[in-house]
Amino acid sequence: MPRIYFQQQLATLKDRLLAMAGLAQQALELSIEAYLTQDAQIAAHVQEVEREINSAERSVDEMAYDLLATEQPMAVDLRFILSVIKINSDLERVGDQSANIAERVVGASKGSHLELPVDIRGMGERVGVMIRSAIQALVEADAKLAEQVLAMDDEIDDRNHVIQNVLLELMQERPAMSDHALNAILVSRNLERAADHATNIAEDVIFWVRGSDVRHRLHLVEAD
Amino acid sequence: MPRIYFQQQLATLKDRLLAMAGLAQQALELSIEAYLTQDAQIAAHVQEVEREINSAERSVDEMAYDLLATEQPMAVDLRFILSVIKINSDLERVGDQSANIAERVVGASKGSHLELPVDIRGMGERVGVMIRSAIQALVEADAKLAEQVLAMDDEIDDRNHVIQNVLLELMQERPAMSDHALNAILVSRNLERAADHATNIAEDVIFWVRGSDVRHRLHLVEAD
Repeated sequence: MPRIYFQQQLATLKDRLLAMAGLAQQALELSIEAYLTQDAQIAAHVQEVEREINSAERSVDEMAYDLLATEQPMAVDLRFILSVIKINSDLERVGDQSANIAERVVGASKGSHLELPVDIRGMGERVGVMIRSAIQALVEADAKLAEQVLAMDDEIDDRNHVIQNVLLELMQERPAMSDHALNAILVSRNLERAADHATNIAEDVIFWVRGSDVRHRLHLVEAD
Repeated sequence: MPRIYFQQQLATLKDRLLAMAGLAQQALELSIEAYLTQDAQIAAHVQEVEREINSAERSVDEMAYDLLATEQPMAVDLRFILSVIKINSDLERVGDQSANIAERVVGASKGSHLELPVDIRGMGERVGVMIRSAIQALVEADAKLAEQVLAMDDEIDDRNHVIQNVLLELMQERPAMSDHALNAILVSRNLERAADHATNIAEDVIFWVRGSDVRHRLHLVEAD
């Protein structure tokens, strides 16, 4: 395969991964909306998007495997393809976490979840920022931005611990709220897991980019 | 590199992955023991094993990457190396789940967890069987055994749901037990995640042995 065609294939692979990332972000945002509004229709939509994600995951994986099998990618291209395979798997798991969150739509009345003294929406937004930033780091081959994502993970862990402690106390004081409180604890755990996947993605971007200086120089030369 | 040397390298890679698997199984078994006995020393040991796992993961990954970079593995060898990379990542996450379980050693008195009307030990043993079987399927290139692992995942999901429901009821009736109950719910969720990783490993074994991607197709069938 001529080198220029191979580079086009790599660009296509990246585009497919970005489409996958778009779906994962959509699933996560919708799942938090479904949970907060206890809206079964939005929850059903999340499950649809999750199925799309699973199919997109296979297509990205197959393309990556084909490129490894038919080309003999060296150094940075090999690292890029391996990073794509790992990031792909993490995005699929963000989809899984979103599906889990959407399962917490259990027909509770709308207000009941909002009464809980915890900020699930705020936590969800921060996790959304982590995933978006990790993907942007991938698009722009920006290892510094990826490092910022790693730094955000501690905040999410802290938020998860606080939510867990606050709700455990609430359960003891108001046992009738136990099911709502448990739901919120589980959603918070799912968000914390989604943040872990954003962290994994950021680490893979760093793995890819740190050796890729040579490649960028090559691209500049080729473009001349 | 002569082909026979390459085959030796692949065998070494497999051995290293098996050592990694041994550590992951050890971490999981110890973590359940630590939780059930609320023994802080065993819990500390789990955290040590988890660090060993992280270092073993890196070494397996590096060897796999080197083989991809320096050889041009075709077809079944390529699939094997890619499976190793994925299985390696799942084993590392079994280590993470074990560390999470070990964090549930919170200085409760020994008996208090055993009072709960749920069978964490039994669930832990079943998840242990799944992981062992998935690894055995890898060792013996046995796709049928790997399929048996996939079939066991439903049982674990059911156990998790039952534990969650039983303990939610308990929380409402005996609020003072809420913290013990919540701990057990979180341990049950960690075990359920560990079982998911065993399932992923089994799927990767099937992908390696048969050359087909069973991941989401089987899940769709299971969902029916």
